[in-house]
Amino acid sequence: MAKLKTIEVHENVFADNIRTADNLRKMFKDNGTLFLNVMSAPGSGKTTLLTALINKLKGELRIGEMDVDIKSDLDARRVAEATGIDSLQIHNGGLCHIDADMVSRAIREYDVSGYDLLILENIGNLVCPAEFDTGAHKRVMLLSIPEGDDKPLKYPLMFKVSDLVLISKIDTIEYFDFDMDKAIERIKHLNPECEIIKVSAKTGEGIDEVIKWIRKEYAEIKKV
Amino acid sequence: MAKLKTIEVHENVFADNIRTADNLRKMFKDNGTLFLNVMSAPGSGKTTLLTALINKLKGELRIGEMDVDIKSDLDARRVAEATGIDSLQIHNGGLCHIDADMVSRAIREYDVSGYDLLILENIGNLVCPAEFDTGAHKRVMLLSIPEGDDKPLKYPLMFKVSDLVLISKIDTIEYFDFDMDKAIERIKHLNPECEIIKVSAKTGEGIDEVIKWIRKEYAEIKKV
Repeated sequence: MAKLKTIEVHENVFADNIRTADNLRKMFKDNGTLFLNVMSAPGSGKTTLLTALINKLKGELRIGEMDVDIKSDLDARRVAEATGIDSLQIHNGGLCHIDADMVSRAIREYDVSGYDLLILENIGNLVCPAEFDTGAHKRVMLLSIPEGDDKPLKYPLMFKVSDLVLISKIDTIEYFDFDMDKAIERIKHLNPECEIIKVSAKTGEGIDEVIKWIRKEYAEIKKV
Repeated sequence: MAKLKTIEVHENVFADNIRTADNLRKMFKDNGTLFLNVMSAPGSGKTTLLTALINKLKGELRIGEMDVDIKSDLDARRVAEATGIDSLQIHNGGLCHIDADMVSRAIREYDVSGYDLLILENIGNLVCPAEFDTGAHKRVMLLSIPEGDDKPLKYPLMFKVSDLVLISKIDTIEYFDFDMDKAIERIKHLNPECEIIKVSAKTGEGIDEVIKWIRKEYAEIKKV
């Protein structure tokens, strides 16, 4: 049966967040676990998309999921119920981010040694999470169509630090004034290396491409 | 011609933010200026809605607008161009909020004595802006349909501190799984006093109701 746990992790400012993050990254790599940090604005569809991805991958990889929220355990519960995988709800005490130290404390209570893939669903916010290294190997962000093509201009750091940008809710593009060429140009201008995939959890568009990206990153982690 | 100015205001933590906010509120009240703080997640349609409201009200009230962003002056420029009113872009140095002290410093560079209505378009974020009193008389927040009806459960403080919640992009409701009854029940559970208006800048739905609300609040400010 899927486990759902809620623990409280409050901020404790450490100057050595990056060192803690590097240690986490190394520990996960040594363990053969790919650790992904998934970020976006509130309501861009992280939980729904992750549920779709996990359901496709769970026969192939052992997956754990951690959800950061201020108070509710809504997302962790949804993921656990919809996928049957283990899900951990992390409460961050009202902060707008989670850092590597908070992740370290969370995984002390949550045995992660058995996972091939650990996904952190960050708090919905385009500012703070961009600033904090959580120890993840890769950062994935969602930009949903209803949010508009100007978001890279307004929240540049988030786009600069992301390895993969998922343009989500692509099925709704005809209802919104979203200029795809401009959006992609703005993202690439900030971050030329960044990969971009258009996705819809509703229609399934792009899901296989994201799965392929995860497999590629997982293979990197397993390399000695 | 509309003025567009950009100034840099960086954080300087003051323990007395609330005292500064109270002083600002009193100063604006004495001046007969209604000061509104407008908050939401990124991409919920603040700029578009404010443009529609300002264009309807500008013949009746003298309106000034301040836009908080990390870097761009996109929103202030859009408002200035679309409405012809004065617009001030405030750069907050990468922070996720603006506080009363930052507002005080901004208005030192921006003469606000001639306005009946001053609107602060806060940074797109459902966490940090909820925590900081900016000195506004009333707080207005937008929850857009694509974000989902669960946002009050996930970002309760934002809904608790708001005087008016605008459920925006209401024209897109048929494309999303948004349960309006649940959304309203969740908002009212957190904040029974809060007013709620459904709006669409595209179709004009609800705009007159918001105008009526602003007129009512402006009348309160003018009372001695």
